[in-house]
Amino acid sequence: VRAEIVAVGTELLLGQIADTNSTWIGQQLAAAGIDCNYATKVGDNLDRIVLALRTALARGDAVIACGGLGPTQDDITREAIAAVMGVQMHRDEEVVQRIAAMFSSRGRVMSDSNLRQADVPDGAQLIMQTRGTAPGLICPVGHKVIYAVPGVPYEMRDMVQRAVLSDLSARADERGERAVIRSRTLRTWGLAESALGELVAPRFDALETSSYEERVTIAFLASGIEGIKIRLTSKAKTDEAARAALDAEEKELRGLLGDVVFGLDDETMEMAVARLMLERHLTLAVAESLTGGLASSRLVSVPGASEWYRGGVVAYSSDVKRDLLGVPEGVAAVSAQCAITMAAGVRTRLGSEVGLSTTGVAGPTEQDGRPPGTVFVGLALPGTEPEAVELRLPGDRDRIREYSSISAFDLLRRRL
Amino acid sequence: VRAEIVAVGTELLLGQIADTNSTWIGQQLAAAGIDCNYATKVGDNLDRIVLALRTALARGDAVIACGGLGPTQDDITREAIAAVMGVQMHRDEEVVQRIAAMFSSRGRVMSDSNLRQADVPDGAQLIMQTRGTAPGLICPVGHKVIYAVPGVPYEMRDMVQRAVLSDLSARADERGERAVIRSRTLRTWGLAESALGELVAPRFDALETSSYEERVTIAFLASGIEGIKIRLTSKAKTDEAARAALDAEEKELRGLLGDVVFGLDDETMEMAVARLMLERHLTLAVAESLTGGLASSRLVSVPGASEWYRGGVVAYSSDVKRDLLGVPEGVAAVSAQCAITMAAGVRTRLGSEVGLSTTGVAGPTEQDGRPPGTVFVGLALPGTEPEAVELRLPGDRDRIREYSSISAFDLLRRRL
Repeated sequence: VRAEIVAVGTELLLGQIADTNSTWIGQQLAAAGIDCNYATKVGDNLDRIVLALRTALARGDAVIACGGLGPTQDDITREAIAAVMGVQMHRDEEVVQRIAAMFSSRGRVMSDSNLRQADVPDGAQLIMQTRGTAPGLICPVGHKVIYAVPGVPYEMRDMVQRAVLSDLSARADERGERAVIRSRTLRTWGLAESALGELVAPRFDALETSSYEERVTIAFLASGIEGIKIRLTSKAKTDEAARAALDAEEKELRGLLGDVVFGLDDETMEMAVARLMLERHLTLAVAESLTGGLASSRLVSVPGASEWYRGGVVAYSSDVKRDLLGVPEGVAAVSAQCAITMAAGVRTRLGSEVGLSTTGVAGPTEQDGRPPGTVFVGLALPGTEPEAVELRLPGDRDRIREYSSISAFDLLRRRL
Repeated sequence: VRAEIVAVGTELLLGQIADTNSTWIGQQLAAAGIDCNYATKVGDNLDRIVLALRTALARGDAVIACGGLGPTQDDITREAIAAVMGVQMHRDEEVVQRIAAMFSSRGRVMSDSNLRQADVPDGAQLIMQTRGTAPGLICPVGHKVIYAVPGVPYEMRDMVQRAVLSDLSARADERGERAVIRSRTLRTWGLAESALGELVAPRFDALETSSYEERVTIAFLASGIEGIKIRLTSKAKTDEAARAALDAEEKELRGLLGDVVFGLDDETMEMAVARLMLERHLTLAVAESLTGGLASSRLVSVPGASEWYRGGVVAYSSDVKRDLLGVPEGVAAVSAQCAITMAAGVRTRLGSEVGLSTTGVAGPTEQDGRPPGTVFVGLALPGTEPEAVELRLPGDRDRIREYSSISAFDLLRRRL
């Protein structure tokens, strides 16, 4: 099965928003072993959407059309698909009821324009909406198919995972052309891409000579702010064979990389911290200056954080550092002493076993004669002297704050 | 002149890297008043690149092909263009010399594969390289044209700005069809897309009948978590005419929408808050439960926040709510009273004029018998009784936290 993606929206062509949807869908198709040969962006224009869909159907077997299912006048993907199918549209009463129920559950009045979202090309099958008001569509065109999903990523991802991938996989199975592609990502922190590359080089050579069943490829993804990812991809005849090959290669790489690897796949640094806190039965509190609540917010994003996270203090002004955290007058805000006092202070003030802190210069201007990117992270652990680590971080204000948060978590992770 | 973009690279289709090039090129074309109706991603496969180029040339007048000019075997855009032109390639001696000079100036040895980058389809004009080893190409196909530029953004941007845009503009001028396109985005919060659509409907009708000089189009962008954007686009003969049309339409829409509009273009809700705090010479402190530092982090992301933002308390455990913010025992965490006490408490504790708070259920499970999405935001302003507003928010844990933060900012913005 050769699938194509058609992303609908004038704002995509004008570059006003990035087409992240087709990137994400491309990843999902690759992981499912389904070929994707073209992806097209097209504006909110009926003739051009129709042409894009027809072109894609002529080249491939399936088209995922994403966007243009909203309630307003410029949302015309439904009409374009009906034209390609050569059918009329009808208003689906079940969808009308679902939309009405969504509005009433949120205490809002439904307007007539929302009913457009209940219009369905004759012969299309619905992908019921669970996160937004627009349903998705599965639209047969001869023995080929067009899937329509919303452009809002949160709604689109749900429908692709719930309905589109399974339908595509069933079509691939029917043709007996199914291969299994499995990926696994090792998340790393603390080494540059070139240094990682040198450590991993022996594996590149070894994999060149491996047989098909064990075939694993290695790629580096420099995802910047979240560290460097090492992606392993295995293509095999069965799920078991693919997973076994990934298991073996993961073990090899961990042997070479040690604690540079902090997690797998979607595991974030804060999840690694959460796991360690739970294992050691410890509680944590955070004192933040330059990160301004970001570190705390990331910790809280881990489900179940209330079991080990007590809270934090955002000490953005020096009064707050003094009054709430006990940082004495005269201690420079950008200093190891300040970070240490903050970490110890928040631990005492909030009654946790572990205290973590950040202070430094996010920029854009320097502070106390220190350039942007000068950052201290502090850590107070039970039974040891509180410590601080000085960092020199690259990037703009937002990146420095992100790097500071992750670096603080990484310090805690390595010490535990 | 109707231009199209063809982005070449299997890694783009697999979603391993995002196609940021076509987003950027789209912005440049829009700003130059050149229509771009389609953008296509295609993998490193000769037949498929040829088909993508032919399809684009059939629909449009010009194609910007980006990527596939490197030195390795999978870089075949040159070959594909020669096939579309129906010509042979020759090795350009001047380019060979430039590549050799680049290698020797960096103290590196040039490999033979680099000489492939000096291959030029007969009849093509060179865009000399200044930042990398591959030159760009201007390739006439009848009265149409294909531009080839590298996929490395830093090299691509230079060539597009230096050579491609001026060539396209010259072609547009020859046809007497040069226009200026300008956009402006109104940021809104608090109304559903359908309700906005109905308020704005009179303008859709009015714009249908406007003359070319004043032509403005309106589009809705549901950017979900950041509210709904209304984008105005004006196409006119001069920059002044385009801006005047946008000014007039913005005034019309503001008249219809009132304080639903919180900002323009890249202005976020926290920037609107920052502007108001500075205007009123007020300082702010934030107490957060379910948002866990997110609200604070967003406020700190505004440069110059230290002038009006004092800091915050993340009261994730009930001990912290009681000890630091004075929430009495027995007050439910998910309640208006808790939100009010937190807002007043953090204002007193941190010595600010304004206190803002969030408490509620982020999920995934219910809390105190209240379902996920039940949220209270509290506000303590000088000279008035502290208040709280109850919200019912949709979505998962992360979205509920984002919505809660923005809703708290919106409450503050409206009260000021």
